[in-house]
Amino acid sequence: MIQFMLQHQSANQEPLRNAPEEFVLPDVAAYLNGNSLGLMPKRAQQAVQAALQAWGEDAVAGWNTANWVGLAQQAGDKIGRIIGAQPGETTVADSTSVNLYKALHAALALRPERNVIVCEAGNFPTDLYVMQGLAAARPNLVLRTVDPDDVEVALDDSVAVLSLSHVNYRDGRRFDMPGITRAAHDAGALVVWDLAHSAGAVPLSVADDGVDFAVGCGYKFLNGGPGAPAFAYAAKRHHDQLQNPIAGWFGHKAPFAFAPEFEPSAGIERLQVGTPPVLSLAALDAALDVFLEADETALFAKADAMYAKAHALVKAQLEPRGFTCISPPPEANHGSQISLRHEHAWPLVRALAAESVVGDFRAPDVLRFGFTPLYTPLEAVETLVETLVGLIDTSAWDKPEFHAKQRVT
Amino acid sequence: MIQFMLQHQSANQEPLRNAPEEFVLPDVAAYLNGNSLGLMPKRAQQAVQAALQAWGEDAVAGWNTANWVGLAQQAGDKIGRIIGAQPGETTVADSTSVNLYKALHAALALRPERNVIVCEAGNFPTDLYVMQGLAAARPNLVLRTVDPDDVEVALDDSVAVLSLSHVNYRDGRRFDMPGITRAAHDAGALVVWDLAHSAGAVPLSVADDGVDFAVGCGYKFLNGGPGAPAFAYAAKRHHDQLQNPIAGWFGHKAPFAFAPEFEPSAGIERLQVGTPPVLSLAALDAALDVFLEADETALFAKADAMYAKAHALVKAQLEPRGFTCISPPPEANHGSQISLRHEHAWPLVRALAAESVVGDFRAPDVLRFGFTPLYTPLEAVETLVETLVGLIDTSAWDKPEFHAKQRVT
Repeated sequence: MIQFMLQHQSANQEPLRNAPEEFVLPDVAAYLNGNSLGLMPKRAQQAVQAALQAWGEDAVAGWNTANWVGLAQQAGDKIGRIIGAQPGETTVADSTSVNLYKALHAALALRPERNVIVCEAGNFPTDLYVMQGLAAARPNLVLRTVDPDDVEVALDDSVAVLSLSHVNYRDGRRFDMPGITRAAHDAGALVVWDLAHSAGAVPLSVADDGVDFAVGCGYKFLNGGPGAPAFAYAAKRHHDQLQNPIAGWFGHKAPFAFAPEFEPSAGIERLQVGTPPVLSLAALDAALDVFLEADETALFAKADAMYAKAHALVKAQLEPRGFTCISPPPEANHGSQISLRHEHAWPLVRALAAESVVGDFRAPDVLRFGFTPLYTPLEAVETLVETLVGLIDTSAWDKPEFHAKQRVT
Repeated sequence: MIQFMLQHQSANQEPLRNAPEEFVLPDVAAYLNGNSLGLMPKRAQQAVQAALQAWGEDAVAGWNTANWVGLAQQAGDKIGRIIGAQPGETTVADSTSVNLYKALHAALALRPERNVIVCEAGNFPTDLYVMQGLAAARPNLVLRTVDPDDVEVALDDSVAVLSLSHVNYRDGRRFDMPGITRAAHDAGALVVWDLAHSAGAVPLSVADDGVDFAVGCGYKFLNGGPGAPAFAYAAKRHHDQLQNPIAGWFGHKAPFAFAPEFEPSAGIERLQVGTPPVLSLAALDAALDVFLEADETALFAKADAMYAKAHALVKAQLEPRGFTCISPPPEANHGSQISLRHEHAWPLVRALAAESVVGDFRAPDVLRFGFTPLYTPLEAVETLVETLVGLIDTSAWDKPEFHAKQRVT
């Protein structure tokens, strides 16, 4: 343990230039739920205040005076830097689900002679729902749902699109993005990656990896606020042929010309649809600056250190106490979250919350904890494990009230 | 003029119980652009502050402590009251364009044996774009674009859906919603109304009028803030068959059960898709309360009085000076906005802005002015007309700098 601490000590030495001070930290012992909702950057709060002020004082002129009109693309390019896209390949619009719908539609249109989407059975539910909805509307479309280990085997010459979440929301497994993208391309398919649990959590290089399309959300590791607008990436090589099924005025090449015929924007903006929700967008746009000002190498080194430490402590202290780690070992591909299985997961997550340690429950028996390198201190990992050890080892565990609320309500 | 003032005086006597005090009023002589962006209700500002505070202090728990999880449906039912829907028939989600896409898709699915959408050539461009996008993706679908007077003639037994904007964004014409809905139904078609320029501007009774689907925006007469989330209405009789083409987790009957198969919500929530943008949604939700607390009869009486006064003054003072009113006479169906044509519309709108009168320009030659009964004072109509008269009559009109920026930039 001491050896471990020494080994990773450098990761604990201000790798982020005061990044934690950039956040409003809730009054808890450890917030390990940034993979559900990221904490509020002070700059995001200020940006929303400024947007409110512009609305109040400038009213409609705010579209220009406060650059609301350029905000979605500005935020899009910031996210592009975070995911390793080229400028002009990423935009902010709608929700992740809507963006996935658009990206899948666009990808399918680029492979008209094929009729299969391959996805993973354990994908985030909304991704599965979007694909099921597409398949329901297209009698010819087949959804081939496979286990994560069988993805490459499933890629035959009927496959139009492979759509996966890069990091699994439930157990934190991470797919090999460059390898699987290459395999899909070798099979003649296109890829649509969902980066909801990756962006801001792990290093990404979508352009170098040859990714066709990607979508993701702004409110987890990017700290854009509850329900922050989502993003969509499309490689520049697809832009000219890119068909957005939802043709709206913000995807028009001249939105304010009020032309009667739709002509898509030449660039990634064609994935936009309607007027963006400016207040939420302003929060996201400012939140991204905090990320971009951090030292990315140090950031992900810290994330790795937290993960390795968590994994080691779970193995050493929690698995002997009835927990099973369902997340990959540190040397394998993983995200910035760790998940444990325990038959009393639900009361344990509630008991943790009572001890001011904020984690997450996924039915029926998973405890899930996210590490946001921007603001989660390395010590939070110890706090988590010590609190769980305490809960298991003390008499509280035996009291009926501990289990009283075991049912999900 | 004096006679007119006396006749409508009652409309000017606090019909709204201090409603103007509910708003942050920009420092201008007259804000007549609430049909583009409504002004900020103080309660909306406070609601956003509260949402920021909940994000900062409660983080992910805010979904419950601040009821973010129920906010879209709460706001939806508030809008339902404004448009005359029954409870549970209206929800807030996405943008107007995305909602129109969903509503059209759902309506088409209810008339599978028909293949024509009838719309109006002068519809708001994004509505046309959404329909063009649908038609581009369905080789069999025909978009029949007609003049507003020819709508009923265009309704034959091939028509699946009639989709119109209730109040035209450009000239303020208002369709006869009950009559045209009845005509569509008589022809076996369904209707999808866009209420973007109606909701909060004119009395609406979608349920009594037999409307099938409606969509609209939150940021015009409803004052929900820049890019506020939009709304979607579907008559309860259609809910069981209602297919949302974009199946997302917020439209699932149990979003947080993380079930692998999509099962739509039993109610209007099935028109939701992804996580709503909470900060923007909180502003809209609070803004709606201001509207709901006003006396609706007095509100629309005031709107009518403003319109009648504006029309009379335009006829008497502006038409002799080279303007042409393109909005309907007060006794005809109209919205709460008036539009004038003038060959120098663009420099005139700019000159008005320099005089602190905020109106709107629509290429190539239209000046557009909206009256929001909640906060626009009756005198603003006089201010507008007097300022335009002044601009035309004074020497400024002859100076070259007045015309220097005539080109739209």
